[in-house]
Amino acid sequence: MPRYRIDLAYDGSEYAGWQIQPSKRTVQHTLERVLAELWGEKVKIHGSGRTDQGVHARHQVAHFDLRATLRPEVIVRAMNARLPDDIRIWRARIVPPTFHARRDVVSKEYRYFIWNGSLLPPWLWRYRTHVRRRLDLTAMGAAAAVLVGRHDFAAFAANPDREVGSTVRELFRLEIRKRSSEVVIVAEGEGFLYRMVRSLAGFLIRVGEGAVAPSETEAILASRVRTARVPTASPQGLFLWKITY
Amino acid sequence: MPRYRIDLAYDGSEYAGWQIQPSKRTVQHTLERVLAELWGEKVKIHGSGRTDQGVHARHQVAHFDLRATLRPEVIVRAMNARLPDDIRIWRARIVPPTFHARRDVVSKEYRYFIWNGSLLPPWLWRYRTHVRRRLDLTAMGAAAAVLVGRHDFAAFAANPDREVGSTVRELFRLEIRKRSSEVVIVAEGEGFLYRMVRSLAGFLIRVGEGAVAPSETEAILASRVRTARVPTASPQGLFLWKITY
Repeated sequence: MPRYRIDLAYDGSEYAGWQIQPSKRTVQHTLERVLAELWGEKVKIHGSGRTDQGVHARHQVAHFDLRATLRPEVIVRAMNARLPDDIRIWRARIVPPTFHARRDVVSKEYRYFIWNGSLLPPWLWRYRTHVRRRLDLTAMGAAAAVLVGRHDFAAFAANPDREVGSTVRELFRLEIRKRSSEVVIVAEGEGFLYRMVRSLAGFLIRVGEGAVAPSETEAILASRVRTARVPTASPQGLFLWKITY
Repeated sequence: MPRYRIDLAYDGSEYAGWQIQPSKRTVQHTLERVLAELWGEKVKIHGSGRTDQGVHARHQVAHFDLRATLRPEVIVRAMNARLPDDIRIWRARIVPPTFHARRDVVSKEYRYFIWNGSLLPPWLWRYRTHVRRRLDLTAMGAAAAVLVGRHDFAAFAANPDREVGSTVRELFRLEIRKRSSEVVIVAEGEGFLYRMVRSLAGFLIRVGEGAVAPSETEAILASRVRTARVPTASPQGLFLWKITY
């Protein structure tokens, strides 16, 4: 029974996130339905990780096993022909049966897109978080520098008590970039706690707005307690950007 | 009774076009409803022209008369606060009562966006027309050069017989641009026949695909008859780009 890996992208606007939930339209469910329609097999798809409602993916990876042996190009063409326009398969390949889309991840990159201008262009509202007040990028960069590295990120988890296992994670990179009205937060790490990227983004936006001083970052991180100083930024600015194996 | 001009943008995906139609959600109707809610006046809005279902506007202009005298910034802020995210007012100003958003237009620019790659990224499907076959830009440019200028464009109107008055129009500019997988057709003119820009785009795409030779352009234009050689390109690639007064 061959194992297939697919690399895909989706616009999360019309989905209740990645993971299957009863009577909700999710990305995983849509993919499994299309596989069943195409090859008559009830297949379980394993993604590299979940994305929340409204979060997008430029690059997501998943694997599944099929009894049928198919050429990868056939999988790409057949799935794209049947999937809605807001999910696209970039590539498929046959992988060893030991490959696991979640367990084998070496690093994940997310990008959080902020529109930092007075008016958000109407064709971007599904893909950008709108912040009107001019962000102080120097302050955001100073706070980000404190967060990079191996730390206990409990203060940046949505539900630190519900995390299975340790809340220690290594953040390889946390960069702030600007191009005209757009501010992008690039976060790369070995893995992230639940809603950690949106919490990092929410915190950095508060710093950029001047509500929190960058010098307070160290104490907030060390407290390991989630407080209102770390809000969760809205989902539509977030893209799962790249998975590395 | 002061006359106001508004410059606005919209994502046409969720609208049945600009113009009011019974029991349909249109941009004009949405604007008039918001004005009535805000200032209790039943106001008629006059746009620079209509856009079809699914067509977007980066820059549209409209005027209306209100009994209330309001500061333009108040209009911008109040309307944007009440409008859905897919319509944004860029600017408002008080204009002389002789100003007319449609009659005073000097030129209009449209841009038609084509995604010319094997896979259309899922966050662009509302804003791009997908053409898989590699377009021959030289051929498209040669055909476009024949179309620029003052001509009878009956062969490029959706319903030449239904046009009120002449089907002669002056096309100031018709350019083909490319940036990685994106091909953009820039069309600027004093005015356009019904669905003329989408017909020009549909024709140029056929030329780019090799289905029609650029040397045939002159005869098709001179025929003044609309045939299947000039298909209407789909609406979602089209943006009303700039109105000049």
